[in-house]
Amino acid sequence: MADNAADYRIEHDTMGEVRVPASALYRAQTQRAVENFPISGKGLEPAQIAALARIKKAAAQANAQLGVLDSDIADAIVAAADEVIAGRHGFVEHFPVDTYQTGSGTSSNMNMNEVLATVATQKLGRDVHPNDHVNASQSSNDVFPTSVHIAVTAALIDDLIPALDHLAVALEAKAEAWADVVKSGRTHLMDATPVTLGQEFGGYARQVRLGIERVRTALPRVAEVPLGGTAVGTGINTPAGFPQLVIELLQRETELPITEAADHFEAQANRDGLVDASGALRTIAVSLTKICNDLRWMGSGPNTGLGEIFIPDLQPGSSIMPGKVNPVIPEAVLMVAARVIGNDATVAWAGASGSFELNVQIPVMGTALLESIRLLSNASRVLADKTVDGLEANLDRLTALAGMSPSIVTPLNKLIGYEAAAKIAKHSVKQGVTVREAVIDLGYVERGELTEEQLDRALDLLAMTRPPQAK
Amino acid sequence: MADNAADYRIEHDTMGEVRVPASALYRAQTQRAVENFPISGKGLEPAQIAALARIKKAAAQANAQLGVLDSDIADAIVAAADEVIAGRHGFVEHFPVDTYQTGSGTSSNMNMNEVLATVATQKLGRDVHPNDHVNASQSSNDVFPTSVHIAVTAALIDDLIPALDHLAVALEAKAEAWADVVKSGRTHLMDATPVTLGQEFGGYARQVRLGIERVRTALPRVAEVPLGGTAVGTGINTPAGFPQLVIELLQRETELPITEAADHFEAQANRDGLVDASGALRTIAVSLTKICNDLRWMGSGPNTGLGEIFIPDLQPGSSIMPGKVNPVIPEAVLMVAARVIGNDATVAWAGASGSFELNVQIPVMGTALLESIRLLSNASRVLADKTVDGLEANLDRLTALAGMSPSIVTPLNKLIGYEAAAKIAKHSVKQGVTVREAVIDLGYVERGELTEEQLDRALDLLAMTRPPQAK
Amino acid sequence: MADNAADYRIEHDTMGEVRVPASALYRAQTQRAVENFPISGKGLEPAQIAALARIKKAAAQANAQLGVLDSDIADAIVAAADEVIAGRHGFVEHFPVDTYQTGSGTSSNMNMNEVLATVATQKLGRDVHPNDHVNASQSSNDVFPTSVHIAVTAALIDDLIPALDHLAVALEAKAEAWADVVKSGRTHLMDATPVTLGQEFGGYARQVRLGIERVRTALPRVAEVPLGGTAVGTGINTPAGFPQLVIELLQRETELPITEAADHFEAQANRDGLVDASGALRTIAVSLTKICNDLRWMGSGPNTGLGEIFIPDLQPGSSIMPGKVNPVIPEAVLMVAARVIGNDATVAWAGASGSFELNVQIPVMGTALLESIRLLSNASRVLADKTVDGLEANLDRLTALAGMSPSIVTPLNKLIGYEAAAKIAKHSVKQGVTVREAVIDLGYVERGELTEEQLDRALDLLAMTRPPQAK
Amino acid sequence: MADNAADYRIEHDTMGEVRVPASALYRAQTQRAVENFPISGKGLEPAQIAALARIKKAAAQANAQLGVLDSDIADAIVAAADEVIAGRHGFVEHFPVDTYQTGSGTSSNMNMNEVLATVATQKLGRDVHPNDHVNASQSSNDVFPTSVHIAVTAALIDDLIPALDHLAVALEAKAEAWADVVKSGRTHLMDATPVTLGQEFGGYARQVRLGIERVRTALPRVAEVPLGGTAVGTGINTPAGFPQLVIELLQRETELPITEAADHFEAQANRDGLVDASGALRTIAVSLTKICNDLRWMGSGPNTGLGEIFIPDLQPGSSIMPGKVNPVIPEAVLMVAARVIGNDATVAWAGASGSFELNVQIPVMGTALLESIRLLSNASRVLADKTVDGLEANLDRLTALAGMSPSIVTPLNKLIGYEAAAKIAKHSVKQGVTVREAVIDLGYVERGELTEEQLDRALDLLAMTRPPQAK
Repeated sequence: MADNAADYRIEHDTMGEVRVPASALYRAQTQRAVENFPISGKGLEPAQIAALARIKKAAAQANAQLGVLDSDIADAIVAAADEVIAGRHGFVEHFPVDTYQTGSGTSSNMNMNEVLATVATQKLGRDVHPNDHVNASQSSNDVFPTSVHIAVTAALIDDLIPALDHLAVALEAKAEAWADVVKSGRTHLMDATPVTLGQEFGGYARQVRLGIERVRTALPRVAEVPLGGTAVGTGINTPAGFPQLVIELLQRETELPITEAADHFEAQANRDGLVDASGALRTIAVSLTKICNDLRWMGSGPNTGLGEIFIPDLQPGSSIMPGKVNPVIPEAVLMVAARVIGNDATVAWAGASGSFELNVQIPVMGTALLESIRLLSNASRVLADKTVDGLEANLDRLTALAGMSPSIVTPLNKLIGYEAAAKIAKHSVKQGVTVREAVIDLGYVERGELTEEQLDRALDLLAMTRPPQAK
Repeated sequence: MADNAADYRIEHDTMGEVRVPASALYRAQTQRAVENFPISGKGLEPAQIAALARIKKAAAQANAQLGVLDSDIADAIVAAADEVIAGRHGFVEHFPVDTYQTGSGTSSNMNMNEVLATVATQKLGRDVHPNDHVNASQSSNDVFPTSVHIAVTAALIDDLIPALDHLAVALEAKAEAWADVVKSGRTHLMDATPVTLGQEFGGYARQVRLGIERVRTALPRVAEVPLGGTAVGTGINTPAGFPQLVIELLQRETELPITEAADHFEAQANRDGLVDASGALRTIAVSLTKICNDLRWMGSGPNTGLGEIFIPDLQPGSSIMPGKVNPVIPEAVLMVAARVIGNDATVAWAGASGSFELNVQIPVMGTALLESIRLLSNASRVLADKTVDGLEANLDRLTALAGMSPSIVTPLNKLIGYEAAAKIAKHSVKQGVTVREAVIDLGYVERGELTEEQLDRALDLLAMTRPPQAK
Repeated sequence: MADNAADYRIEHDTMGEVRVPASALYRAQTQRAVENFPISGKGLEPAQIAALARIKKAAAQANAQLGVLDSDIADAIVAAADEVIAGRHGFVEHFPVDTYQTGSGTSSNMNMNEVLATVATQKLGRDVHPNDHVNASQSSNDVFPTSVHIAVTAALIDDLIPALDHLAVALEAKAEAWADVVKSGRTHLMDATPVTLGQEFGGYARQVRLGIERVRTALPRVAEVPLGGTAVGTGINTPAGFPQLVIELLQRETELPITEAADHFEAQANRDGLVDASGALRTIAVSLTKICNDLRWMGSGPNTGLGEIFIPDLQPGSSIMPGKVNPVIPEAVLMVAARVIGNDATVAWAGASGSFELNVQIPVMGTALLESIRLLSNASRVLADKTVDGLEANLDRLTALAGMSPSIVTPLNKLIGYEAAAKIAKHSVKQGVTVREAVIDLGYVERGELTEEQLDRALDLLAMTRPPQAK
Repeated sequence: MADNAADYRIEHDTMGEVRVPASALYRAQTQRAVENFPISGKGLEPAQIAALARIKKAAAQANAQLGVLDSDIADAIVAAADEVIAGRHGFVEHFPVDTYQTGSGTSSNMNMNEVLATVATQKLGRDVHPNDHVNASQSSNDVFPTSVHIAVTAALIDDLIPALDHLAVALEAKAEAWADVVKSGRTHLMDATPVTLGQEFGGYARQVRLGIERVRTALPRVAEVPLGGTAVGTGINTPAGFPQLVIELLQRETELPITEAADHFEAQANRDGLVDASGALRTIAVSLTKICNDLRWMGSGPNTGLGEIFIPDLQPGSSIMPGKVNPVIPEAVLMVAARVIGNDATVAWAGASGSFELNVQIPVMGTALLESIRLLSNASRVLADKTVDGLEANLDRLTALAGMSPSIVTPLNKLIGYEAAAKIAKHSVKQGVTVREAVIDLGYVERGELTEEQLDRALDLLAMTRPPQAK
C-alpha cells in the first residue's frame, strides 16, 4: 500500500531490523508474521482478538497486584486493552496476522503485545514493552489457547444458546398453534398413520432444545483454560497465584464460567475440549438439516409437491418461470450445516496433531469453531424470523392427505379384521379415494358390518394421534 | 478353544518359544500377533490375503529364476500359494491376525510366510523357511502395501467397474423406455418446467458412467506398487531385476495393469494413491445418494407423496400398517453410501499418518477400501436388479402433475405476455386446476386472445422438454 | 449351502410363499431379507441382537401384565428371549440379515420376532405368532432404534468406561513412578524448558479421564429411548402404560439408566443422541492419537531417535533388519482411532438423513457405533496391558537430554541478564555441550559473575518443573 | 451505513418496492438477498464473481450474434462485464450477497445481472434490463454452477498447478544437492537401513508431482459445464446454438479447456465433478501433511530432537525461552491441510444434497473449493520459498546417526552370519557405539573373522542406499 520510504518506520526485534508501515500500531514481530504468512489473507475472528485483549488486561492487573508490574504501566495496558476490546482499533488493520501462521498463535500473541505496548506507551508517555510488560508472566503457549477457549465459551453462551432458544420458541409457537392440525405421517417417505403438524414442530423444538443441552454439557471442558502453564505447563517464570488471580479477574469481567485447568499438562498439550465442543455443534447442524429438509418438503409444490405448508415468500425465485418462489432460508441453513460439518472435520484433524507439550494447530481450530458458532447463531435466528414465524398450514390439503393415507385403516382391524382392512386399503389406493369412501364403496356399511357412526369414530384422524396413554 | 496341552505344539522364533494350536498352518510370529492384537476380532479382507499369496508365488518364481531359491523350494511355495489363492485353506482360521495390528502389516506378511512355509514343507518333504525362503528378497514394507494395491486394483477392475456398468445399463434401459414420458421438473423442490422421466434416468446413468471414469483415472496411481523397495525404498538385499520380474509375473497371472513405482521412496513412504482411489469411491457414493433419494421421493406415497413411479414390492413394510411397502433397496444403498463416506474419512486420516520411510496405518486402509469397493459393487447390482429393472412409471399421475405445474405457462409469454401468463399461473395454483383450464376459465380463448389450437401447441409438454437446439 | 429340496421348508407371509432352510429358526420375512440384501455379508453386532431380545422379553412381560398377551405365551417368549440373550442360538446363523437392509431395521426386528416365535412355539407346544404375539404393542420404528440405544448405553457403561479407567490407572501409575524424572520439554518439536516424565503421563491420564467424562455427559441423551412411539411417535395401537412398564422392566434387568423419550416425535424421527455419542468417541480417538504418537516418538530409536523410553518388545519387527522391534501396539491403537474417526463420519452422515417421522439409516449407525465402542474398549486395555504397564524410562538419556536443552538457560536471566543467557544458549547448541558447560566455557564462573553454587541452583532441572505456585 | 433517506433510492421488482443504498450498482433483488441472508458476512470468492461476469460477457456476445439482443446493448453489457472482470468495481461493496443464500446462487446471479445492467445503462444511455438483457437465454440454474466450474478450472490451472510445480522444483533441487548425503532410514520411527537425504526429498517431489497429476485427471470433469440447460436441463427458452457459442467464446477468452456437458440432466442436477476435484485437493493436503511432518521432525532440536536439518529462522519463537526458533511455515501449511480436509467434507456433504433437477448447495461448494485451491497454492509457494529453499543439512549429525543405526549390520549377514550380526547390533545399541566399533570391540577383526577392509566395504552406508538393480 505505502510506496514511499516515508510511509514506513524501522522497528527492531532480537532478529534485527524490520520496516513497518508508519501508521501501524504493531511492531517488528507482527510485521515478520505478515511477511511470513501470505496465505489466506484473513486473520483471526474478532471475538478471539477481543478475548486475547481481555487476558492481557487481566494479566496486567494481576501482575500489578503481585508486584511484577508498576501500577502505572499496568493501568496503561488496561486502558489500551479496553480500547481494543471495544473495537476502537478495529480487528483487521492492526491485527493483520493470518490464521495460517505458527501453530501456537505466537505471532498473534505478539501482535497483541505490540499493539497494546504501542497504545499504552502513547498513553503513559514512557516505554511499555511488548514482552517485558504486556506479556509478563505469560507465554503464547498458555495465553493463546486460553483466548480461544474464552472466545468460544463466550460465543456459545452469549450467541449460540440464545439463538437456539429463539428458534425453539418459534417452533414451539407453531407446535402449539397446530396442536390439532392432523396430517399424514410418513415413514420411509411412505404414507403412515396420522400425526399432528404440531407434534412435528414440537419434535423440531425438542431437537433444538437438546442442542442447547449438548452445548451446556460441553461447556465445562471448554471453559477450562491452560492459563498459568506458560511455556510447557509447569508455569515457569510465573509468580505464585498468578493464574488463579487472572482467571478470577476474567470471570468477574466476563461473567463467564472460566476455570483453571485441573491438569496443566493435559491442558497445555491438547485441545480436546474444543474437539468436544465442535462435536456438539456438528450435532446441531445435523438437527437443523433434518428440520430444514422437512420444511422444504412440506412446502414443496405448489402443485406437484406435498404442498402441506406455505413458506413465506422472500424473493423472486426465477427469471424464467413466472411466480416461482423457493425455500431460500432453509437452503441457506442447510449450507451452514454443510460448513459446520466441514469445520468440525478440520477441528478434529487439527486436534489430533499435537506433540508433547503443545498442539500446533490452535489458530485454525479457533477460527473454524468461532465461524461455526457464528454461522449457527445467525442461521438459527434467520430461520426463526424469516421462515418459521411466517409459516402457514395448508389446512385443506393437510386434512385431505391425512384422510387419503391408506394406513388410517389400522383402527378398522378391530372391527372388521386385518384382512378386510387390507382389502380396503388397497381399494383406496387403487381407486384414488379416501379410506372412508372405500369402506362405503365395498359395501361394509350397506351390508351392516359396521355403522357409519362406528366408521366415523374409527376414522377420527385426530384421535389416532392421541393414543390412550397420552390421556 | 483347545484346552488340552495335546492340542498345542511349540514353535520358536527369534524371541523364544510360543504355544500354537496343533492344527494351525501358521507358526510363532502369527501366534504372537494373535495374542498381541485382540482388538476387532476380524482379519484382513480375503481379497488382500489372496493378493499377498499371489505376490509370494511370483516372488518364489522370480527368486528361482534369479538363483536365489532352489527351484524345488520355489515350486513348493508356488503350489502352496496356489492353494491359498484358491481358498483351499480358507481366509479366517489360518489367517487370524487382526486388521488392527502393526501398521506395516508385518504380522500378516509373516502369517502368509508361515502358512506357505508349512504347506510347502509338507509338499516338499523338507524344510521351507518362512523368512529365508518364502520372504526371500522381500520386506513387509514393500510386500504388504503392494498386496493392498493389487487387491484394490483387482477389485476396482473386476468387481466395481462391471457392477457400475450393470447399473448404468439398467438405468439406460429406463431412460430409453421413458424417453417420451413427460413429468414435472423440480428445482428447489418447487414445480418447474417439464422434463421427461427418461431424461432423468439418462442423467442417473451418466452419473454412474462418470463414476466408472473416476475409477479409471485413479487406477494408474493405485496400480503403481512399491514392490522392490524392501525395507526403506532402496531395495537393500534384493537382487537386481527382482521387482521387474515379479511385477511382470503378476501382470501375466492377474492380467492387471500393475506397474513398478516410478519413485520407490514416494511409493514406500506414502499411500496417497489409496487416498486418491478412496476419493473416487466417495464421489460414487455421493452419486448413488442423489439417485436413491430421487427414486425414494418419486416412489413416495402411494397417496400422500409424489407417487410418480412404482418401486417393486420386495417385502412387507410394517407389522402395524397393513399393505405398507417401503423402498428398502434404495435405503440399503444409502446406508452403503454412508459407510463409504466413513471409510473414506478413515483412509484419508490414515494416509496422513506416515513418517519418513513408512506409513504405519496400511492394514486399516486396505480393509476400509476393500470393504467400500465390495459394498459399492454389491449395492450397485442389487439396486439394478431389485429396484431399477422393476420400476414402473405411474403414467397418469406423471402426466397430470406435469400439466399442473404452474411453470408450464412459460411458453405463453410470447402469445399473451408475461403479465397475463403470471396471472394464469396464479389462478391455476389457487384453484387447483391445470394451466389449460386456467386459460379457459379466465376467458382468453373465449375472448379470442388465442385459439384452442395455439393453446394446445403452446402447452405441449413434450415439446417443452426438447428445445430447438436439440433438433 | 443346502442343495436338496429336503433341506428347505416352505414359509408364508402376507406376500406369499418363501423357501427357508429347514434348520432355520427364522421364517419368511427374514428369508426375504436375506435374499434382498446380499450386500456386506455381515449382520448386526451381537450386542444389538441381544438388546433386541431384551426388549422383546420385557415387552412380553408388559403385554401379559396389561392383558394383551396370555401369560403362558408371554412366558414362552421370555424363555426364548433368555436363550437368545445368553447366546444359545448364536448371533450369526439365525440372525442372517445384513446391516445394509431397510433403514428402519424392520427386517432385523422381524428376524427376532420370527426366531422367538419359533423357539417359543417349540417350548409352549402351541403357536406363538411373530407379529401378533412377539411384536405385540410394538413397531420396528420404535423397537429397533431402542435396541441401538440400549446396546450403545450398555457398551459405553459396561465396556468403554471400565476400559478407559483401566488405561487411566496404568497411566497414573507411571505418572506417580516418574514424578521426579526430569526430561526436556518440547514445543513445536523444539527443545523447551524441562518437565517431568510423570507430568506428561499425568496429562495422558487426565485426557483419558476426561474421555470418561465426555461419555458420561453424552449418556443421558443416548439412554433416552423412543420405545412406545410405535409407528410414528403417537403410540398408536399401544396400550396405556406400556412404554413405561417396558422401560421399568428393562431398567431393572439391565441396571442401565434407560429413560422414556421426553418427546416421542423427536425421539422417533431423529437419532441425534447417537450422533452426539459418536462425537464423544471421536474425541477419545483424538486423545489416544496424541498419546500414542508421543509414546512412539519417546520410544523412537534406539540410536537415531529420541530414545527416552523403552517400549516393551512384543514381536520381531523385521525379517531383514536383525533385532528391530517396533511400537506395534501404539500403531494398532492409532489405526483404531482412524476407524473411529471414519465411523463417526458415517454416523453423522446417516444421522442427517431422516425425513418426517423416521430416520432410515439406523442399522448402519448402530453397527458403526458399536464397532467404535468395541474397538476403543479393546484398544484401551491392550494399550494399558501390553505397552503402558511395561514402559521403562531411559533415565540416563532423559537426564542428559534435559540438560542439553538450551532452553534451560531461562532461570539465568535473573542472574546475568537475558543477553548473556542467550549467548550461553547459542554456545551450548553450537558446541554440543550442556548449558552448564557453556557457562563454564564462557568464563562466567571464572570471572566471578556467578558462583558454581548459584549456577547449580539455577540449573536444577527438577526445580524448573515445579514453579513457586505449585508449592 | 447510510442513515438519511437521501442515501437511499427506491427500486422495484416483481414483489414490490425495496430501498437500496444510493451508491449501489445493484438493485432490488440483490437488496432483498442482503436482507434475507445476514449469516456469514462474507460473499463469494472474487474468482467466482469474475467468472460470472465472463459468462455474462460471452452470453451477451452470443445473444447478439443469434439475434436475441441488439448489438449496442450487447456491447454495453460486454463493456460493463470487462470492468467487473478487471476488478474496477471491487468484489465486495457491489457484490454483497452472502455465500449462505439460496442454494442455486440465484441471488448472486441476479446481483451480477443488476450490476451489469446498471453499468451498461450508464454507458449506453438507455435502459439495459437485468433479466431481459443481461440474463437473456440463461437461468441461474445453469449459469451459476457454470461460474463455479470455470472459476475452479481456472484456479486449478493458473494457480495450483504452477504453485505445486514451484514446490516440486524446490524439492527436486534439494534431492539433487543431497543425492549422496547418507542418513538413517526410519520405519515405525525406529532405526532402519540408510537412505540418502536426497532420496527422501526426491520422494517428496514425486508426491507433489503426483498431486499435479491428480488435478489434471480431475480437470476434464470439472471443466464440463451445464451452461445451456437453463431451468431444468432441457434448455427451455434458449436459442439453438447458444451454449455452444458461449462456450466457444469462453474458451477463446479464458484459454481454459471448458466443454459443454455431455448430458445436461446430469450436469444440471449434480455437482459430482466438484466433489471429485475436492478429493484431489484432499489428497494433496495429505501429501503436504506427510512432507511437513517429516521436515519438522528432521529439524527438531536443536539438541534434544533429531537435528538432521536446519530449517530457516524466520521469526523469534518464544518470549520466555531465549533463542528458540520454530518451524513456523510447516506448521502453517499443516493448518492449511486441516482446512482443506474440512472444506472437502463440506463439499461432499453439499454434493450429496441435490434433488431432481438441482443441487441446492452450490454457493458453499464454490466458496469452499476456491478457498482450498487458494490456500494450497499460497501454502505451496510459501513452503518452497521460505522453508525448502533455505534448508541446510546437518551433515555431521546425519552421518553420525546413519552410522549409529543398528540396522546397518544387515550386510554383515553374508560375512559372519545373521546370529553374529544380531549380537553386534545389540552390543552397538547397549554400549552406544557405532556398529563398526562394536565389530572391533567384539574381536571379529582381531580374530580374523573379517578384515578391516571387508568391514569398511560392508559398512559403506552410501552403497547400502544403492542396491545392485539401481546400477
